[in-house]
Amino acid sequence: MVRIAARFAVPLHPVSTGKNWGYGDACPPGSGQVLVDLKRMERIREVNRELGYVVIEPGVTQGALYDYLRREAPDLWMDCTGAGLSAGVVGNALDRGFGHTRCGDHMAGSCGMEIVLGDGRLLRTGFGQYPDARADRVYPYGTGPMLDGLFSQSNFGIVTALGVWVMRRPEAFSGFFFSALDEADVGELIERLRPLRMMGLLQSAIHIANDVRTFSARTRYPWARANGLTPLPAEIRASMRAEHGIGAWNGCGGIYGTPRTVRATRREVKRALKGFRLHFVDDRRLKLARKVARVLGVLGINRRLGPMLDILEPVYGLLKGIPSDEPLAGTGWRVRTDAPPQALDPLDSHAGFMWASPVIPSTRAAAADLLNLIEPIYARHGFEPLITFTMINERAMIAVTNLSFDQRQVEEAQHATACYHELIQSLIRHGFIPYRSGLTGYGALREAGSPVFWSIADQIKTIMDPRHIFSPGRYGLGGEGD
Amino acid sequence: MVRIAARFAVPLHPVSTGKNWGYGDACPPGSGQVLVDLKRMERIREVNRELGYVVIEPGVTQGALYDYLRREAPDLWMDCTGAGLSAGVVGNALDRGFGHTRCGDHMAGSCGMEIVLGDGRLLRTGFGQYPDARADRVYPYGTGPMLDGLFSQSNFGIVTALGVWVMRRPEAFSGFFFSALDEADVGELIERLRPLRMMGLLQSAIHIANDVRTFSARTRYPWARANGLTPLPAEIRASMRAEHGIGAWNGCGGIYGTPRTVRATRREVKRALKGFRLHFVDDRRLKLARKVARVLGVLGINRRLGPMLDILEPVYGLLKGIPSDEPLAGTGWRVRTDAPPQALDPLDSHAGFMWASPVIPSTRAAAADLLNLIEPIYARHGFEPLITFTMINERAMIAVTNLSFDQRQVEEAQHATACYHELIQSLIRHGFIPYRSGLTGYGALREAGSPVFWSIADQIKTIMDPRHIFSPGRYGLGGEGD
Repeated sequence: MVRIAARFAVPLHPVSTGKNWGYGDACPPGSGQVLVDLKRMERIREVNRELGYVVIEPGVTQGALYDYLRREAPDLWMDCTGAGLSAGVVGNALDRGFGHTRCGDHMAGSCGMEIVLGDGRLLRTGFGQYPDARADRVYPYGTGPMLDGLFSQSNFGIVTALGVWVMRRPEAFSGFFFSALDEADVGELIERLRPLRMMGLLQSAIHIANDVRTFSARTRYPWARANGLTPLPAEIRASMRAEHGIGAWNGCGGIYGTPRTVRATRREVKRALKGFRLHFVDDRRLKLARKVARVLGVLGINRRLGPMLDILEPVYGLLKGIPSDEPLAGTGWRVRTDAPPQALDPLDSHAGFMWASPVIPSTRAAAADLLNLIEPIYARHGFEPLITFTMINERAMIAVTNLSFDQRQVEEAQHATACYHELIQSLIRHGFIPYRSGLTGYGALREAGSPVFWSIADQIKTIMDPRHIFSPGRYGLGGEGD
Repeated sequence: MVRIAARFAVPLHPVSTGKNWGYGDACPPGSGQVLVDLKRMERIREVNRELGYVVIEPGVTQGALYDYLRREAPDLWMDCTGAGLSAGVVGNALDRGFGHTRCGDHMAGSCGMEIVLGDGRLLRTGFGQYPDARADRVYPYGTGPMLDGLFSQSNFGIVTALGVWVMRRPEAFSGFFFSALDEADVGELIERLRPLRMMGLLQSAIHIANDVRTFSARTRYPWARANGLTPLPAEIRASMRAEHGIGAWNGCGGIYGTPRTVRATRREVKRALKGFRLHFVDDRRLKLARKVARVLGVLGINRRLGPMLDILEPVYGLLKGIPSDEPLAGTGWRVRTDAPPQALDPLDSHAGFMWASPVIPSTRAAAADLLNLIEPIYARHGFEPLITFTMINERAMIAVTNLSFDQRQVEEAQHATACYHELIQSLIRHGFIPYRSGLTGYGALREAGSPVFWSIADQIKTIMDPRHIFSPGRYGLGGEGD
């Protein structure tokens, strides 16, 4: 198919499952591009239980991989994002997305690609270039120059198979949930957690969400209470925190190991987060809490514990790599009316959202500078920022800041777009560069960057895809887009 | 300088410090190439104590970086290889070398490159393409396609600065040393250690050396005892093991954390290695042992403990990132006479050695297959294999197998070369692909690999270095070499 498209210079926009929500969904970067839907390339080509990896095609969804592993290799835990059961694993990794477990950095957990180039040739990266290589899925670098990075956040080829590292189920696991009541305390949380991350005691991606982002998982914007006003008034925000029993910042992470090491690490987390609200959750405690909730509910003593557990459970599941559609609800924060029943695709429920996702060092100072920069921009355009900080590696955090709007409210959508552009421009100008971008951000990223970098990238594009048939304009490469 | 060389098409072979021993040293891949010695680019441009990284130029040696950190940032621990004080940090990372600590994978610990391209332009990778990016040394991927991998094991540019992650000194540290008496037990060791590696309990590179490799650190080939015969007769090998008190396989690793987590992890290591000889070493125990050795020595009760500690200490140091020239002694295994005093460069002591370094999955089966393949080849050419297995990540090991010879013995050197070529060919044919190569291995790696891969790599070479002035022939790229 690619050969035919190349012959007639027909641009193709490949999508794995097309659920790139908040970053342009399945939209091609320019008009006239033929959508190549890879969802039927859904084979799980290999599973290695001993070494903890799978080799999958782009159509494999989080839900499908989870079901497969539960059935065929229950001792393996995958990593997943909050994007739900129908989101693809390969597409997320290629855009350098992330999840919640020790394998949360999806680029770092990729090992070996099979790629169809623009002239139809097949390229295998790493040791995959050698027939029968023994270590092609366990050692990512191969021999000679490493090419894999080129196929992330680009449009240089169609990745038709990817090696993905998964965890072996640890002997013991504990989740931990923490919160800070004061908005100013996020910096302190970061300073306390970074040493544990840098010492390797904490190895999962640690997520810390602000209050509004946490509300969004449970409820929608209180339109009536706010008399239709935006952004969310401070008093209502404060009352909602109290009503939902959540902090200004709320975080979670996972501890993986043996009973002994998990216990020791728990105590270090406790020591580090002294003075903050902190709860450990594991399978045993969760089961017990369920029982208690049932009894209290039946007796009419407490009916809130059950619903609280309903909210907790999917988040706890993410720390164990269990995908869930629950987090998708958070995308509907600004939607005015109820979504149609079972609308699992946010696009079907009129949920509009755009993510501006800068990377910052895991320090108090960087977090403060970032918040001071973006909060006034959000406010000026009538939005309250939905923010998560994810400690993605030992030194850096990705701040996913979400602009939420109702797609049917034309004016609100326009404000959101204006706000997004101001955000992206300001972020880049202040050195807070997004880790990933949607269609509307490509131009800014390229303009602010180095002409040498982008001209080299353009030339590599031409090698991989001489007629520029793949997604012209994606990440500003191989054409203008629209 | 590069611009002038490009104008006159003068090939340049850049070396950082030129200590690429066993992989071709500082030799250019072809004749007529001007050696560009970068050793005077030795600035340490930045040290970040909070986030644990340095930005260094290619001339910075392991010794210089260690001294600098001890003086200016004693709370930071670097990682180093066994190649001694004068070996460069950047060159090793670019060839994807490795060390002993949690930061043992030097490619994985690199973050942000500054590169002079073949036309003299300067390229910065990752977020370095943006002026004042805040996360350029803490987040490796940047935005858009990731180019960094292209500059490892290639000849696409001169890397003039590299961000290198270093550890913050952990609250507690323990080394562990283990051995197996039976040659067949290496597989069992690997099976026992892999789960700890995959669970993240062990995070350092774990090194396991065979007996001969371990001898080589302490003594030379017993020429007199073997009546000049090679390879080393089995009886002598067995007696030497007993005399030196070492096993058929001898390994070590590091545990980093807090006193509590180090204690918990020690117990897991003990549980995992039950039945094998195992010792934990930390600063306190080492100091105590030194005292005991002094007393026993003075009293004439035991004079062997002191020398044993002399051997142990540098290896223990490597687990803490302390570089040492001691391991260089191991390169002289086959040298007939004593080296000139203070000949720290193996080349000055007539030590000949070539490394064939395949990557294999961390499994008993893969290790057995590899040993069954290479041991007869070594024997047939009159050599005993010097082998280390390094568990470089959670799933793979690099087997560094060394051919040691005396450079003055023409015949032995010829046998070594023939043996090396047979090794490389057999290894690749059986899917054991080297992680890295010296000059004489480039051809085999390219011939056995995918033509698509190498033609793409050739084209990228031409983008980065249009006139092919950088090291033509290195890794088979941009020319034939000699």
